[in-house]
Amino acid sequence: MRRNAMAALLGAALAMPLQAADFSPYVDAAGRISLPSDVRARLVHLGSWAVVDADSPARGFHDVYTERASVEHYRKTGAFPDGATLVKEIRVLNTGPMTTGNPVHWGSDPAVWFVMIKDAKGRFPGHPLWADGWGWALYKADDPAKNVATSYAKDCQSCHVPAAATDRVFVHGYPTLTAP
Amino acid sequence: MRRNAMAALLGAALAMPLQAADFSPYVDAAGRISLPSDVRARLVHLGSWAVVDADSPARGFHDVYTERASVEHYRKTGAFPDGATLVKEIRVLNTGPMTTGNPVHWGSDPAVWFVMIKDAKGRFPGHPLWADGWGWALYKADDPAKNVATSYAKDCQSCHVPAAATDRVFVHGYPTLTAP
Repeated sequence: MRRNAMAALLGAALAMPLQAADFSPYVDAAGRISLPSDVRARLVHLGSWAVVDADSPARGFHDVYTERASVEHYRKTGAFPDGATLVKEIRVLNTGPMTTGNPVHWGSDPAVWFVMIKDAKGRFPGHPLWADGWGWALYKADDPAKNVATSYAKDCQSCHVPAAATDRVFVHGYPTLTAP
Repeated sequence: MRRNAMAALLGAALAMPLQAADFSPYVDAAGRISLPSDVRARLVHLGSWAVVDADSPARGFHDVYTERASVEHYRKTGAFPDGATLVKEIRVLNTGPMTTGNPVHWGSDPAVWFVMIKDAKGRFPGHPLWADGWGWALYKADDPAKNVATSYAKDCQSCHVPAAATDRVFVHGYPTLTAP
């Protein structure tokens, strides 16, 4: 019996990291999140924000992406599927005249990427970057391999409070989520 | 001989519309362009422009899309492939406070779509909406089935003159065209 119980525990321990690693290609067994590659060409555009506030640390052109399958799931159910990836790519804000008007804003060099990974199962209890149904990450252009966010509560939570009713996502800026 | 010549002419006549219709799913044999469906979810995001000029008729949030294959071709060659589709979706400009700053601009209801279809072969000589290497179209949200542009020279040309050196496309706003 004791041997069986140990085998069961061992089995559970082995299964846990596998389950964690399997639900997203961008999450390892320890809950570490990596930045998806070539986001703009591989993922679907949800919407963009031009943050023109000169005094804001978030000043920039914000483009937001997810998987096409996640869009399809959202259109059917009104929710992001487990494992969905959201990437907000923030680029340097450019402002100038175009033939369409003056001023016009657009993005140039990449600055940072925010990543959210939907976790509907609470896979990483106690992990400082997994909370409120998502894993949270932040990468800077000078080292896109390093998640510089260390704490959801400190680095991410406050900005997403107004979107608590829509699963922490500002969906009113993402018309792709509405079927055409 | 006369019968052979007629057969050759007939063959050429039959081949012409096929060639025209085949190079793009959005162009028929007469050069009529249709608006691709579900652009945001099916195509790749090139970049966006926030035209905040209150006096401009183009005021709005401009999101621009193309096929993933067209992005891959551009990254390799520096040019759009024959048959490439560009869609600029213009939405009503919203402005307000967000946790990222104040003001922030984003798009809401769709207003119009501009479409460009790359034609590297001059398929429609004399057609008023095919010129400078592209077919040109404009659709309004109240009737997305109707191309309301009637003349490239009158409806499209002047706005694209500053981008003549980059095949009439404002590529400096489209970071997706640069390999990551």
